[in-house]
Amino acid sequence: MTKMKAIVKTKPENGAELLEVPIPDFADDEVLVKVKAVGICGTDLHIWNWDGWAQNRIGTKKLPQIVGHELSGIVERVGKSVKGVQTGDYISAETHIYFPKDLNALLEQKHIGEGMEILGVDRNGVFAEYINIPERVLWHNDKSIAYELAAVQEPLGNACYAVLGENGDIAGKSMVITGDGPISLFATAIARACGATKIFLIGMSEEMMKIGKQLGADHILSITNTKQEERIKFVKDNTYSAGADIALEIVGNQQSISDAFRCVRKGGRVSAFGISPQPSVTIDYDNEIVFKGIQIHGISGRKIFDTWYRVRNLLASGRLDVRPAITDMMLLDDFQKAFDKLTAPDRTSAKIVLFPDKKDLESTLNRK
Amino acid sequence: MTKMKAIVKTKPENGAELLEVPIPDFADDEVLVKVKAVGICGTDLHIWNWDGWAQNRIGTKKLPQIVGHELSGIVERVGKSVKGVQTGDYISAETHIYFPKDLNALLEQKHIGEGMEILGVDRNGVFAEYINIPERVLWHNDKSIAYELAAVQEPLGNACYAVLGENGDIAGKSMVITGDGPISLFATAIARACGATKIFLIGMSEEMMKIGKQLGADHILSITNTKQEERIKFVKDNTYSAGADIALEIVGNQQSISDAFRCVRKGGRVSAFGISPQPSVTIDYDNEIVFKGIQIHGISGRKIFDTWYRVRNLLASGRLDVRPAITDMMLLDDFQKAFDKLTAPDRTSAKIVLFPDKKDLESTLNRK
Amino acid sequence: MTKMKAIVKTKPENGAELLEVPIPDFADDEVLVKVKAVGICGTDLHIWNWDGWAQNRIGTKKLPQIVGHELSGIVERVGKSVKGVQTGDYISAETHIYFPKDLNALLEQKHIGEGMEILGVDRNGVFAEYINIPERVLWHNDKSIAYELAAVQEPLGNACYAVLGENGDIAGKSMVITGDGPISLFATAIARACGATKIFLIGMSEEMMKIGKQLGADHILSITNTKQEERIKFVKDNTYSAGADIALEIVGNQQSISDAFRCVRKGGRVSAFGISPQPSVTIDYDNEIVFKGIQIHGISGRKIFDTWYRVRNLLASGRLDVRPAITDMMLLDDFQKAFDKLTAPDRTSAKIVLFPDKKDLESTLNRK
Amino acid sequence: MTKMKAIVKTKPENGAELLEVPIPDFADDEVLVKVKAVGICGTDLHIWNWDGWAQNRIGTKKLPQIVGHELSGIVERVGKSVKGVQTGDYISAETHIYFPKDLNALLEQKHIGEGMEILGVDRNGVFAEYINIPERVLWHNDKSIAYELAAVQEPLGNACYAVLGENGDIAGKSMVITGDGPISLFATAIARACGATKIFLIGMSEEMMKIGKQLGADHILSITNTKQEERIKFVKDNTYSAGADIALEIVGNQQSISDAFRCVRKGGRVSAFGISPQPSVTIDYDNEIVFKGIQIHGISGRKIFDTWYRVRNLLASGRLDVRPAITDMMLLDDFQKAFDKLTAPDRTSAKIVLFPDKKDLESTLNRK
Repeated sequence: MTKMKAIVKTKPENGAELLEVPIPDFADDEVLVKVKAVGICGTDLHIWNWDGWAQNRIGTKKLPQIVGHELSGIVERVGKSVKGVQTGDYISAETHIYFPKDLNALLEQKHIGEGMEILGVDRNGVFAEYINIPERVLWHNDKSIAYELAAVQEPLGNACYAVLGENGDIAGKSMVITGDGPISLFATAIARACGATKIFLIGMSEEMMKIGKQLGADHILSITNTKQEERIKFVKDNTYSAGADIALEIVGNQQSISDAFRCVRKGGRVSAFGISPQPSVTIDYDNEIVFKGIQIHGISGRKIFDTWYRVRNLLASGRLDVRPAITDMMLLDDFQKAFDKLTAPDRTSAKIVLFPDKKDLESTLNRK
Repeated sequence: MTKMKAIVKTKPENGAELLEVPIPDFADDEVLVKVKAVGICGTDLHIWNWDGWAQNRIGTKKLPQIVGHELSGIVERVGKSVKGVQTGDYISAETHIYFPKDLNALLEQKHIGEGMEILGVDRNGVFAEYINIPERVLWHNDKSIAYELAAVQEPLGNACYAVLGENGDIAGKSMVITGDGPISLFATAIARACGATKIFLIGMSEEMMKIGKQLGADHILSITNTKQEERIKFVKDNTYSAGADIALEIVGNQQSISDAFRCVRKGGRVSAFGISPQPSVTIDYDNEIVFKGIQIHGISGRKIFDTWYRVRNLLASGRLDVRPAITDMMLLDDFQKAFDKLTAPDRTSAKIVLFPDKKDLESTLNRK
Repeated sequence: MTKMKAIVKTKPENGAELLEVPIPDFADDEVLVKVKAVGICGTDLHIWNWDGWAQNRIGTKKLPQIVGHELSGIVERVGKSVKGVQTGDYISAETHIYFPKDLNALLEQKHIGEGMEILGVDRNGVFAEYINIPERVLWHNDKSIAYELAAVQEPLGNACYAVLGENGDIAGKSMVITGDGPISLFATAIARACGATKIFLIGMSEEMMKIGKQLGADHILSITNTKQEERIKFVKDNTYSAGADIALEIVGNQQSISDAFRCVRKGGRVSAFGISPQPSVTIDYDNEIVFKGIQIHGISGRKIFDTWYRVRNLLASGRLDVRPAITDMMLLDDFQKAFDKLTAPDRTSAKIVLFPDKKDLESTLNRK
Repeated sequence: MTKMKAIVKTKPENGAELLEVPIPDFADDEVLVKVKAVGICGTDLHIWNWDGWAQNRIGTKKLPQIVGHELSGIVERVGKSVKGVQTGDYISAETHIYFPKDLNALLEQKHIGEGMEILGVDRNGVFAEYINIPERVLWHNDKSIAYELAAVQEPLGNACYAVLGENGDIAGKSMVITGDGPISLFATAIARACGATKIFLIGMSEEMMKIGKQLGADHILSITNTKQEERIKFVKDNTYSAGADIALEIVGNQQSISDAFRCVRKGGRVSAFGISPQPSVTIDYDNEIVFKGIQIHGISGRKIFDTWYRVRNLLASGRLDVRPAITDMMLLDDFQKAFDKLTAPDRTSAKIVLFPDKKDLESTLNRK
């Protein structure tokens, strides 16, 4: 067998195609992975829509390119210099294929290093039956973790890093989380599992926030039905007048950033994760940063592999169950339907996971 | 009314007496508290038994003295320089009445400062209807926290500090906890609530370890039925061959200390809480500390008031329920029965809480 | 003797007067201090100028009021509940008279607590022969520290906290410092004493930056003679193309904030200390915070008393000599001359220290 | 040219030989380095002496083997998969050739990972004209750092990690350092450069402690001329009765460990670096660890590459000058003389650096 199915971005326009393409080669320091499950990420939507970001970041010259970067799979073959992974290993992969000799990589900040390649962005992605991946970004999954959960460890890692920040100190602390997309929902579940004691989820979609509640949010605050002053008052009323110990800003627009900075208490922490369509953001620097004595942690990606370790442990132990946020599971072949759901005006899907193999999907659905 | 009931250590021998004594005065910087519930601690047992420690630490000259230091209560009256507490406030108290100008107190390590007085050890304690307490060690309880739970926040604080160590970084990490007394059981519950992903409880009493299981331990390891090598092997087999990320040593004897240091993984952390009857302890310094690159955090008391804040939040949010470890609740008048249970050869009681007021006990029992 | 000299703000207009006023009373928890030396701070200039900030913050109703808050002195008398300080003690004082039962004060963040009173702002200040100060904000000086150095420990503490941030991790790291006022100069000296390995001082006044060089700056970058792009290029060229590990933003205007955020490397830290006249500041949130994965630490005041402890040790050990930044020492009576120098268009003075007692000034000048 | 000079351990007995051997091959992920300077470490002395440790760790079967692991050099050729290093690069190397997929390596604790190979212990070392080294442990030196200084960055890294511990928080803190060998001397210089404010060096050799003084120790305490109680009293008398904030234990015997634990203050930190010939060490666990609330950090190796980064910055900036501790520089050919000096009963040498190339040695000595 030398061919495989893959979802390929072929043209600089909306959409992508299911094609039969050659199974990829793999370099000496790479492995070939048989893909078991893949998650669809916001980045994939940008590429699907071929928006401004995609046009700049990927560009026409790189097309055709296979999309996607969240996966779980089984190692099929290993390159000849690979030493820490074997055929048959159950793995996922860090999307940020870091350059090991970059300064940040040397200083244990691989996730923000220069010279990195991103799976499904700078090279072919995982929405396919097979994918070649460098050994250094592979992560061994715990065998007890189901395919669909292992596939979303990468965005769970984003959420986990945002929740824990640079120091991991959240036990017994209150937390505001902005947004109601998959990262916000995942963050809610992780915060709950890790001892955040009061979780305020600030979002828009009633459907999504219902899932947030299911995943552990104590209070739901709708930006549609409340004014900012009401939200701040509510948070203070429920935190001994102080404000939340921690705020996760996951959305990235001016309103949401302002919510996060105004809801956090003096001496608290803001995780800055969301990115903003605007060129810049206005912050009340004096009152919301300096006088308040807060810390802001810029969160980009996940710690490699500190975050992976924690996420694996949380999933394997059963402490963390994010299945309510995986609203849809379907065949890779049904990708069109999946993207349609994710780009529909009224959101009913949070995270969608696709399976290349029908048997895997069926056994997963039956188990559920 | 000028008299109150109190449990008083009157003589340098086993036991104590229920006496009627004057309601205490209070200084300008103190408040008078009407006691609602008190917990019996290991320290109280030492004093009850009048063992070597009690003879040295308290001594005959201080007798008679009222015993006890874990409490919840309502502020009855306030001294004239008290500014942050009012009549009617629902409070508990830090036992370590620190001296504010000691160097450690100035450096945010009040819990280990010089010149501190300990409630029920260096001055009259809380096993009484009223107690005078300096404002600076008062802690405002959340009104939603029941009397018996608020009363055990002090030992919960010990457990919480041991669990979190100096940096609070436990989310997604595995943990070994030695011992099966109240602190070990409380630590189990807190670790579980705060995202420790695999909790191994190493103890002796089947009864107590059953409670540990109920409070969240994943694995129970009996020191009676297993050898140390078996315990280490079990922990490694369940932590990807590495050992536990964190070990809490709560017991203090050579065997237990050795369990903790040998079960923790390279680069892990040991919280050293248990104190040892022996003058000194033998440690394989090279292999268990240096080459393993671990951190050891000496844990004495609780952070004042960082730990209190977290414990209050955990209790108020319902994330933490330690009621299974509060095995008995009874009247203060029944103290003899309580101490009999706690000093009996076969342990059936973990934490016992006493109520001065019959109505409080009844409503508590009915609510349960 | 019941009268003393003091510099009093009497009218809501520019300036202040030297008056003879009663020596203040002191409460039970206060001491009476004989002032030895005082430093003039930017805050004092705001009050002197009676600018918008001063009108709002202090207001006409509080006048007359004695100005000033940086001091060293000798305890003359102690209130009756004072236990940790004695007559004859050589002290300085934290300006932020915190309210001990505020949540932030309870959580070891006294410097940003609610309900604090500020010396010389909310109550009479130290530009006088005597001042009453609550015991809890007193700090014992090392006897080896000269009066004028002990008097500037308070602003040195600002600088020290900005340099060290929340974690104190600067050894072997490069640092950009914006501004050329006393705090920037002090920060330069502290960074140098504490192992910052390359210090870039970005300022305006040639005179002040010469002092910066003397205090340990490796590179001086003039905002008058260079463009921002040149400054960024220079910093990168001298930091293996990465940017500085740490940036201290001490000025607070848009240009300077932008310098700090653009000069810091990925994964670095910005200390946000400067406050801004504008209502808000524009930041390239995505690129300078999120993608760069930096930490921002809002720095307000000093840690009480962690920062004091370090500053005292640095001064007493001789590691830190900030005398080049104390450009003028004169009699308290000459305050008009001092304020004239500090408000002159061309800056020739950095920090000015005043002495109430002529003999102290003379022996200080002779020693020098 | 295919041959080179090398110092080879050929027989299981005292000593080693200078032999002509083939220039080594290098694998695809390795580079070939032309050695410029090498330092002699205590480990090399163990191997030279063929003591119990060497017999166990290396064993007869591995002989003949080239000795040594501290180096600076120039990359001569690069393997075909090497991407971050080029011919002509000026490098040193981390001795611990870690296995990248080990759990500790994945969790940013490469220095204590399983499966590592050590240069000069598990494979041929650097006392030679050429050496093959895997790319992943190479470190780019700053060009301004002299060969002999670049060669001792590896033991400087040990010292730096011991000084900074896990959190790097030493600015403005006092420090006790035990021992007077190269690591203790290096630690003294680093502590001084990084803002430790009072450095107490506890050692034996007057000659070495004179160097310690030169490198920045404030106080020298001789274990020959003082009793432990005197040393503790001296440290307390010079630290406001508290004890040192930090103690570095570099020696590893019972006396020295006891010095470190007894001299550190409540709430302080001990870096446990020294290893002990005895099977185990007795510690007053209750009083010196638990009640004192200290942290102990086990220090093995150096952080890879966080420590390297700081050491490079310190050397390149000129903040750190450890030349007084490099007591001898000589030709590689004179290795016998060097080892004789290091094994002589009266110690006159601290660190010795050897140069394979006569011209390099001469220009180094002339520059000096």
